[in-house]
Amino acid sequence: MRGAVLHAPGDIRLEQRPDPVIAAPTDAILRLSATCVCGSDLWQYRGADAVATPSPIGHEYVGVVEAVGDDVSIIEPGQFVVGSFLASDNTCPICRSGYQSRCVHAASIGALGAQAELLRVPMADGTLVATPGLPDDDLIPSLLAASDVWGTGWFAAEAAAAGPGRTVAVVGDGAVGLLGVLAARRLGAERVIAMSRHESRQRLAAEFGATDIVVERGDEGVERIKELTDGLGAHSVIEAVGTQESMMQAIRSTRPGGHLGYVGVSHGVELPGRELFFSGIHLHGGPAPVRRFLPELIDQIWRRETNPGRVFDLELPLDEVAEGYRAMDERRAVKTLLRP
Amino acid sequence: MRGAVLHAPGDIRLEQRPDPVIAAPTDAILRLSATCVCGSDLWQYRGADAVATPSPIGHEYVGVVEAVGDDVSIIEPGQFVVGSFLASDNTCPICRSGYQSRCVHAASIGALGAQAELLRVPMADGTLVATPGLPDDDLIPSLLAASDVWGTGWFAAEAAAAGPGRTVAVVGDGAVGLLGVLAARRLGAERVIAMSRHESRQRLAAEFGATDIVVERGDEGVERIKELTDGLGAHSVIEAVGTQESMMQAIRSTRPGGHLGYVGVSHGVELPGRELFFSGIHLHGGPAPVRRFLPELIDQIWRRETNPGRVFDLELPLDEVAEGYRAMDERRAVKTLLRP
Repeated sequence: MRGAVLHAPGDIRLEQRPDPVIAAPTDAILRLSATCVCGSDLWQYRGADAVATPSPIGHEYVGVVEAVGDDVSIIEPGQFVVGSFLASDNTCPICRSGYQSRCVHAASIGALGAQAELLRVPMADGTLVATPGLPDDDLIPSLLAASDVWGTGWFAAEAAAAGPGRTVAVVGDGAVGLLGVLAARRLGAERVIAMSRHESRQRLAAEFGATDIVVERGDEGVERIKELTDGLGAHSVIEAVGTQESMMQAIRSTRPGGHLGYVGVSHGVELPGRELFFSGIHLHGGPAPVRRFLPELIDQIWRRETNPGRVFDLELPLDEVAEGYRAMDERRAVKTLLRP
Repeated sequence: MRGAVLHAPGDIRLEQRPDPVIAAPTDAILRLSATCVCGSDLWQYRGADAVATPSPIGHEYVGVVEAVGDDVSIIEPGQFVVGSFLASDNTCPICRSGYQSRCVHAASIGALGAQAELLRVPMADGTLVATPGLPDDDLIPSLLAASDVWGTGWFAAEAAAAGPGRTVAVVGDGAVGLLGVLAARRLGAERVIAMSRHESRQRLAAEFGATDIVVERGDEGVERIKELTDGLGAHSVIEAVGTQESMMQAIRSTRPGGHLGYVGVSHGVELPGRELFFSGIHLHGGPAPVRRFLPELIDQIWRRETNPGRVFDLELPLDEVAEGYRAMDERRAVKTLLRP
């Protein structure tokens, strides 16, 4: 099969890779309908995360089940399925508490490489959720978004306790931040402040329901948020970048007793304990337990109530995966969808 | 009046200080029935927090109202009252959301010096809660505990989401940690693991309802907690020390998706962002909004349902304040009650 392989920072190639096979009786093999490039792939692409090259890459996927192992009893060949970026058994105590991303048997999909034609998914019954039927083609981008960015944006908004009567600020205008805006509105937030200085992203934020746009960042951004919230800060803040600057901006934008949901994969961040202590905020985040939300998110998409697939502003054949990365790296695209 | 003054690290003296007077129309003057020494006073006493000497000190207090300003309408002379270590108006949006410790008009009681005969309390109507009548003398230690350590332990247990079906681990065996044990049990936790290597504190933890004692600390302590929790970590962890070691021990003792309530005043702590991210825990803490809990805690004490005053294992006349500090500094006493 054809699959993307990262050779070195900036060097991604589509290559012939061996077709995956059932390796454990709980595995499923999917023929992918769509896959995409994640902001977190860019950390590796840019060399910020070390890579043992050459490595398969990609962890977002939707597709049709081709084969299942002997112990798979819920998922069946022929079903259209959505899975999370981390495989999970969905039965351990951590999964049952809703944190499938920290399943005691969690396995990385990224290491298996979902930017490909075929994908082996471990613990298929725990990891995958089937749609009610084969989806219309126009639903595929949104279902693919549910696999990571939509689930992550939703988790961030829940972690930030977005809801009625609350003002939500969103730090980060990548796909996850933009979908954090959409999730916050779906959860009932009255006011959602998107922090972005890019016009096209501001427009998408507004389409997703942002009521205010703040272009300042860092301490100036914090001041703007305070001006918009009677000097108090936002009730809820979503952090979707993962740098020291973005985390401090997020912490300082949250009012005392407020909630910060942080989902930007942390890079080089050190949180000052004393400032955090006196901030009096709630902090929750990490790799999103997307599996928890999949049934609900799929249902919303199936009913055409939400259209998170709008974050894909570039669609390419898988053959052009390298251009897909370049476009995101250069911020010409918010998110690239790839058709195998 | 007589009041304690900290001159330099290790040098605390009882001196004649001017009687406090009504300075603002929202003030009250209290004649204190009891006051005490806090673990957080020890940071100054030990020189870890800089002190502009000579400074009044002490922020825990109960007593009888002697006088009130013209704008005080709820609190009346003659009432027996309990207040928090931070004065708050109890009407601003932050107070109304339950975070009176971060009131937009918050004022430090410590700077006014509650280790004294008399105390001026700003924003008396917002800060003070009257008991149903003059208390029996045996209730005074518990009512005094409500002023800080009991309210702080309660907040920590709530921040850690202690409750039915959950296992709670407590890092720190000072008065707050021990009262965290009591609070966790009152909130319905089935299992409470106290981390302590001091026999007398272990006994008090057991009296407060600890079901397990762990004597190891640091990484070994974390391993012990995991052994006791099927390798997962505790659902809820209370941190009541404030050092780098105790915070890391607490973070690592919390299972993914679990809750860490931290109330040890942070000293020299830097939290590694990436480890915190992948921990997937909830983090909440800071200066406890004791005022939120005072009505409930006073009610419990008045009904003699809880006896948090048991943390006082040394009672001295205010004249012997220096010995009260020394005994706590040398860990001969958990907490010193002072009678003016």
